[in-house]
Amino acid sequence: MKYALASLFFLALTGCQQHEMSKSNIKPVVPKKEVVFEGLNRPWSIAFLNETEVLVTEKNGDLVRVDLHSGTKKTIAGFPSDLTDSIGAIHFGDNSGIFEILLHPEYEKNQKIYFSYTAKKRGVGKTTKFVQATLSKDSIYDLTTILVAEPYSNINYHYGGGMAIGADSKLYLTVGERLFWEHDEPEIPIAQNVADPRGKIHRFNLDGSIPNDNPDLGADAVPSIFALGIRNTQGIALQPETGKLWFTEHGTIQGDEINILQAGSNYGWPNRTTGRLRSKDYSPPPIEDVVFTPPSWFWQHTVAPTGLCFYTGDEFPQWKNNLIVPGLSLGSLWRFRIQGDTIKSAEELFLDERVRSRKVAQSPQGKLYLLTDEENGKIIRIKPEQQQTIH
Amino acid sequence: MKYALASLFFLALTGCQQHEMSKSNIKPVVPKKEVVFEGLNRPWSIAFLNETEVLVTEKNGDLVRVDLHSGTKKTIAGFPSDLTDSIGAIHFGDNSGIFEILLHPEYEKNQKIYFSYTAKKRGVGKTTKFVQATLSKDSIYDLTTILVAEPYSNINYHYGGGMAIGADSKLYLTVGERLFWEHDEPEIPIAQNVADPRGKIHRFNLDGSIPNDNPDLGADAVPSIFALGIRNTQGIALQPETGKLWFTEHGTIQGDEINILQAGSNYGWPNRTTGRLRSKDYSPPPIEDVVFTPPSWFWQHTVAPTGLCFYTGDEFPQWKNNLIVPGLSLGSLWRFRIQGDTIKSAEELFLDERVRSRKVAQSPQGKLYLLTDEENGKIIRIKPEQQQTIH
Repeated sequence: MKYALASLFFLALTGCQQHEMSKSNIKPVVPKKEVVFEGLNRPWSIAFLNETEVLVTEKNGDLVRVDLHSGTKKTIAGFPSDLTDSIGAIHFGDNSGIFEILLHPEYEKNQKIYFSYTAKKRGVGKTTKFVQATLSKDSIYDLTTILVAEPYSNINYHYGGGMAIGADSKLYLTVGERLFWEHDEPEIPIAQNVADPRGKIHRFNLDGSIPNDNPDLGADAVPSIFALGIRNTQGIALQPETGKLWFTEHGTIQGDEINILQAGSNYGWPNRTTGRLRSKDYSPPPIEDVVFTPPSWFWQHTVAPTGLCFYTGDEFPQWKNNLIVPGLSLGSLWRFRIQGDTIKSAEELFLDERVRSRKVAQSPQGKLYLLTDEENGKIIRIKPEQQQTIH
Repeated sequence: MKYALASLFFLALTGCQQHEMSKSNIKPVVPKKEVVFEGLNRPWSIAFLNETEVLVTEKNGDLVRVDLHSGTKKTIAGFPSDLTDSIGAIHFGDNSGIFEILLHPEYEKNQKIYFSYTAKKRGVGKTTKFVQATLSKDSIYDLTTILVAEPYSNINYHYGGGMAIGADSKLYLTVGERLFWEHDEPEIPIAQNVADPRGKIHRFNLDGSIPNDNPDLGADAVPSIFALGIRNTQGIALQPETGKLWFTEHGTIQGDEINILQAGSNYGWPNRTTGRLRSKDYSPPPIEDVVFTPPSWFWQHTVAPTGLCFYTGDEFPQWKNNLIVPGLSLGSLWRFRIQGDTIKSAEELFLDERVRSRKVAQSPQGKLYLLTDEENGKIIRIKPEQQQTIH
């Protein structure tokens, strides 16, 4: 009997270990797409109130609440009245509209949210505006302005609009340079001019005040500026392992990049680009005594990278802490394996299932979602192919 | 006691299953490189005599036998005397030299091997030659010619030279078009001319005779031709799941591709390319009544893809049946997940550990190896990072 018990015990231990050590049940990673909601008017971003209820910004529509479980959508009332009114009648390429939606880190207690959009000033033009508000019963109130990236202009492009909370509990905002043709640059290019809020990444306290430890960029500098030389950035996300913020940037002709955010860094636009300028008749004036920060990654072709995220879920354990980046132009989705600050590998997924994509985001329980930039815009869940039963 | 036994048994079963179902011990795939041999003069290909003894072709050197266990190298005697004698004194970009090495499927019984190289004809020029031989005691004898891709010329480029055994036990050979400038094309471009063996993929019986079921390309056609419209292909490999052959192709300015081989297919060069021509003063003459086969994949930038292989080993279970492709120009290594004929995802590996690479190959027991195209050429083993001990 003792022998039998001992054998059984031994079998239990070694049998388990043998199965754990076996790789025969580890298969190639096969991600699949599942449409969980559609009918959104060019969704730009998403914030999870809980596992099944989300806020979504429709670039050409409204701020809405979607219940993924019941499949219902409700417009949030009270959106600012200075939202540009041109977006219903414009061509597909116009960048104007509603952009980012972000929850305050203590949303559960204070119901505060942040969002960004194209604000208009009658007779003057449009620009990017960042606002904080309180959400209650499908309505927002107590709106306060964080930043208006003046001057207003009539150029319908390169608003930026990205927002993220850093590991330091500060609010980071991205503003594009608000130009289409480089030959329209002023003498000091917009993104290089620290007196201009455009073409920059800004850093604020959560209440909209200026942090006392922002980089010192000189007496003329807009005090919220944290980094410069940005052409147009929409996606910015926190890397959980290092606490650094990573952001995507749109180049002109190629020149699409991924960068790591550092205080006071100059990301080079328009003086440095891995792509080419649209205006053949323009050369940026040389700048003395400046260090440009090169990108961590750039694409050889145009992907138009947007709202990236770091994946920390459990459904794809092989993707733990990888960076996921969607793109507009080629409808691509990219996965980067990163070690510290170094990108070790780059995988393009869903090569035969392309869809113009604006954002990837993770639910509180780690499900991975994608927003498509379409007039019948979709929330798509990315999940593993059904695993075979393991015996 | 019965209860104790039952409990123990139940614990054994469920404990095992819980551990098997847990994904917490599945980690991101982290491939690492380990140099196992060096000092090879621009190694082009490799064939495994067994798990630790290999034949290697050095493009600028010899056919050698390497013992990976003892770290020794021995030159194989008897190499054909018509090997071009210019390779010791030429510039790095010259394509001439020794190319492919391949074992006969029944090598264990007959010691037959195949290889390809640049053959010279004094006073005339050079071209690609494919030979069968018998290997015995580090010497080759009983050499027979499979194919000489005449005419000989003095252009030092685009020999092709790739060889593979198909699922049909036929011998497939790749011959480049043997031109550098497109404006040197004759009236019917070489790769489009079925009367010319260059710019083609050929199919032979293992004994060098012509199969009776090669595609009928007309009375003027060279009978060994299997496919046409090839600029320069070096890598060709068998996909285990479907039995199809896949091959890489070098474009001129970009235009690098991966293709699936089909009987009689026209891969389009120079009439179709995803890249651009070198000669701005050349346009290929239009061809009537032809169907061009587009690539399964092309790169937007130049990678110069070479000796690919399908991975079927066990060290990287997530890579099972994936296609691995090395490249010269950017020193890159690519992994493609393929389902049937469709490429589902494309991953570039070792982004920060680039080395000009000519070949990937798998040992009999499934270890993955890489050959680097350097004057101090290396055999590099690609293996997983040390796994944590699982308890």
